[in-house]
Amino acid sequence: MTDDFALHERLEADTAFISDLPLTRVLLMRDARYPWLILVPRRPGAVDLDSLAQDDLRDLFLEARLASLALKRLFTPDRINVGALGNMVTQLHLHVIARFEDDDAWPGPVWGAHPALPYDAATLEERLHQLRAALTL
Amino acid sequence: MTDDFALHERLEADTAFISDLPLTRVLLMRDARYPWLILVPRRPGAVDLDSLAQDDLRDLFLEARLASLALKRLFTPDRINVGALGNMVTQLHLHVIARFEDDDAWPGPVWGAHPALPYDAATLEERLHQLRAALTL
Repeated sequence: MTDDFALHERLEADTAFISDLPLTRVLLMRDARYPWLILVPRRPGAVDLDSLAQDDLRDLFLEARLASLALKRLFTPDRINVGALGNMVTQLHLHVIARFEDDDAWPGPVWGAHPALPYDAATLEERLHQLRAALTL
Repeated sequence: MTDDFALHERLEADTAFISDLPLTRVLLMRDARYPWLILVPRRPGAVDLDSLAQDDLRDLFLEARLASLALKRLFTPDRINVGALGNMVTQLHLHVIARFEDDDAWPGPVWGAHPALPYDAATLEERLHQLRAALTL
């Protein structure tokens, strides 16, 4: 089922690889404003939640919960935002974002609020290291 | 488990009742700009996806899929957006929104984009009638 999986070029450009969970590829959004994960089910052709079989849908949300708990443990955010929008990138992907009451978009959503703020190389490496440790089974 | 469930007053004010699914109360957002559902798990104290037991989490996303399919069938949207944000209302609730390439917020998210546009009474009644027929088990 996963042989033909390829990440959408926009997601490829905007993220860094963290890990592969049983269903999803876990990515870090290259935006230092927020700890922001993207989970992409490795199912070719999936565009919507209803593209997924019931077992995959269950796994997607178990993995989203795992991602949410990892963000809470690592960053102690005020809130976790979860969303599947896909207005710009049709490949099914789920955002899991740690939000803070003093972050740049609070209390609005992060999407479209500000241009991405690049990580410096050292911070990116450290964040990827932390997240890989938390999100590799 | 559901005896103490009470809808948050902000959700109560902003929505109209559609139906109770096994886990969630399904509401219509009083914003005529978009066909916009809100699913609230009837679990007192739930604030985040990880507040839910695994069975409830599975049910939440099966009900979200049901809501998504109902919106597709009724309104033929270009995309379904799903999100659990809760930056303003902490009670766990899931948005399921039919999006169109010519809607007022496209391609951005709907949250915070525009003030709600009230339905006229006849349109609201018709929409509630359609949605109740589609979302009552």
